[in-house]
Amino acid sequence: MIDVQDAGTKRTALREPRLSRAVLGMGSSGLREVMEIASRPGVLSFAVGLPATDLFPREALAAGTAHALRTEPAALQYTLPLRELKEEIVRIMALRGVRCRPEQVFLTSGAQQAMDLLSHLLLDPGGQVVLEEAIYDGIRIAVRRFEPRILTVPTSGDCGIDVDAVAALLSGGARPAFLYLIPESHNPLGASLPLESRQRLAQLARDYRMPLLEDDTYGLLGDAERTLPALRAFEEDWVYYIGSFAKILAPALRVGWTVVPESLIPRLSMLKHAADVDTASIGHRAVAAYLAAGHLPGHLETLRREYRRRRDAMLAALAAHMPAGTRWNRPEAGFYLWVELPRSWDATALLRVAAESEQVAFAPGEAFAATDAASIRHCLRLSFGNCSPERIEEGARRLGRALSRFTPAA
Amino acid sequence: MIDVQDAGTKRTALREPRLSRAVLGMGSSGLREVMEIASRPGVLSFAVGLPATDLFPREALAAGTAHALRTEPAALQYTLPLRELKEEIVRIMALRGVRCRPEQVFLTSGAQQAMDLLSHLLLDPGGQVVLEEAIYDGIRIAVRRFEPRILTVPTSGDCGIDVDAVAALLSGGARPAFLYLIPESHNPLGASLPLESRQRLAQLARDYRMPLLEDDTYGLLGDAERTLPALRAFEEDWVYYIGSFAKILAPALRVGWTVVPESLIPRLSMLKHAADVDTASIGHRAVAAYLAAGHLPGHLETLRREYRRRRDAMLAALAAHMPAGTRWNRPEAGFYLWVELPRSWDATALLRVAAESEQVAFAPGEAFAATDAASIRHCLRLSFGNCSPERIEEGARRLGRALSRFTPAA
Repeated sequence: MIDVQDAGTKRTALREPRLSRAVLGMGSSGLREVMEIASRPGVLSFAVGLPATDLFPREALAAGTAHALRTEPAALQYTLPLRELKEEIVRIMALRGVRCRPEQVFLTSGAQQAMDLLSHLLLDPGGQVVLEEAIYDGIRIAVRRFEPRILTVPTSGDCGIDVDAVAALLSGGARPAFLYLIPESHNPLGASLPLESRQRLAQLARDYRMPLLEDDTYGLLGDAERTLPALRAFEEDWVYYIGSFAKILAPALRVGWTVVPESLIPRLSMLKHAADVDTASIGHRAVAAYLAAGHLPGHLETLRREYRRRRDAMLAALAAHMPAGTRWNRPEAGFYLWVELPRSWDATALLRVAAESEQVAFAPGEAFAATDAASIRHCLRLSFGNCSPERIEEGARRLGRALSRFTPAA
Repeated sequence: MIDVQDAGTKRTALREPRLSRAVLGMGSSGLREVMEIASRPGVLSFAVGLPATDLFPREALAAGTAHALRTEPAALQYTLPLRELKEEIVRIMALRGVRCRPEQVFLTSGAQQAMDLLSHLLLDPGGQVVLEEAIYDGIRIAVRRFEPRILTVPTSGDCGIDVDAVAALLSGGARPAFLYLIPESHNPLGASLPLESRQRLAQLARDYRMPLLEDDTYGLLGDAERTLPALRAFEEDWVYYIGSFAKILAPALRVGWTVVPESLIPRLSMLKHAADVDTASIGHRAVAAYLAAGHLPGHLETLRREYRRRRDAMLAALAAHMPAGTRWNRPEAGFYLWVELPRSWDATALLRVAAESEQVAFAPGEAFAATDAASIRHCLRLSFGNCSPERIEEGARRLGRALSRFTPAA
């Protein structure tokens, strides 16, 4: 019955339960280690994907939440998911070129819960999942309890996922439970997927009846005129859209959603019931009140302007301070930028040095490896959303100094 | 690739993804069907376990939440779980006779999430779980994705779980991942476990190194002088306490907690990260602000007085209106009461008749069957927490009429 990890003493072992195999098989998250380094006092951090604390609409959310609690007697009770919030989300989806109905909208506790519930819906233990070789940590964490076979495809900071590689996998016989991707303002790459790639992916999803999980967490931060429609605009049945208010309102609200074929909603409701009860939360009420008051359009304009300003500051600072041999991309929107160091360098090793000697931090490419980190170990992500232009300039200066002094191990 | 449930047309089938085996294996929840019947317009419902809407401290929660959002810049950001809320919970645990440290407290999105995460922590697919034969639906829903072997033990509305049966299972070789139980104000039975049963269960947990998941959702509603200490007070290493603010503050806050050995906290954090990110939510802030303002003790007194009044109204109304051949228990606290009809009756059949002819609803015993419903098909749960004494009197009158007219099928 004893199955002790973490090198406990025998005394500890006797007090520890037998843990599930899935839990014993979990490593720790690379990003959590990065957060630990990045959160040391005095470190100027580009490591964690935080939205701007100073841009949260605190007053409007405070007033709207308090009003909802005071005036709606059932606001604190167990209730059905909020129809009015689903209707607001349908209107928001139109901003992304997507036509859908409230009956296709499922409300979650953030985008992470949408990933988790969709994984439970579609994935069997040992099943296949297609991921880009560099991808947001959260999806890997969501699927790992299924010990899936992860099929990776190349991706780049310039134009995102390699659609030819996806087509080759599928024509070669792969039958994944789903492909997860971030077509707009990719995390960690900052890339936005070209129109032709979106069209081809939609066609592949149809042809192979393969669900595409489209994580559009950053899609509404893009310029309203220039941003391409979401993948879901190109394919209704096989693209499952994942949205979130974490980056356009605030993370602590814990409100996300997914748009799926209506027939899947009762299944998701059962899964959410098992996870944390499918009921309207105070966060759902807070967002519904905020949206009903008509605050969102003006707020999105503020966010787009301000994140653009921070991106431009980052681009200027990198041009000024980065040594030769490094390159980086120019994200259209969002708040991530992808830097490539010389091929033989190890960004995780650099992070330790940079945090110690220059008090600056970033997320090493390794933290985003879908499986093998070999192709991205020399890369790093800079997250500048929660930094003022002055801090960005100072951070890039420190980063440039750290790079100049860094001697990679042979 | 096609695996269609729910008798779709071929056209639908072609648009539906292949679903996971776990999802295909899920039946629908008995309680959800009951909720549908009970929520028909005009039906006076004792069916759903709702706390009293009119007793929610709406003004204090509204003011506290708004204040927190206005004054704490990081209140809406991703942050670590709230240390101050854990400290408040340590003080609350003392009211249940439990000594613990903030490092042993893990914050969740309601008690259901605690059940879900602890199931992931401890249970392998096909593993064993011990449940009472009549038990809260939520735990069955939480474990069913693991397709466990559920070992049931008898239980009763008078004194709860049959500890001899637990001992017999264990001495007979059963090695369950855990035993889940509700020692105080049992849902659905309303029973409170005698002192000797608590002591014996604690000893069995120690002897067999078997985690006991103690769901104490209703424990703080009991009389402060007369309620027995929680099971966790008798055993520190093997009882994992599950608490919730759903019934003592409000469900929509989505705040629960579990108290476990400190060594398990990082594992739970990883599991919560996968499920919905382990960050402080607006609900956590709302509860922390409420508790910091010192509102809870007075509020608990109000709840205890009011739920006692409602229980007494239910007991008086049942005595006045129930026909001969029925019996019910007298719960010490909480808001559930368990009725036994004549052995040959089917409470689910009665529910349909009662809802149609007398516009009154309850939860049939079948909805709480851990596996086989045979032993509790003639029983029903009355949930009176959200009903005024006048509604309780009226509902019991209707129920009595429905029972008098009911003719069970042969």
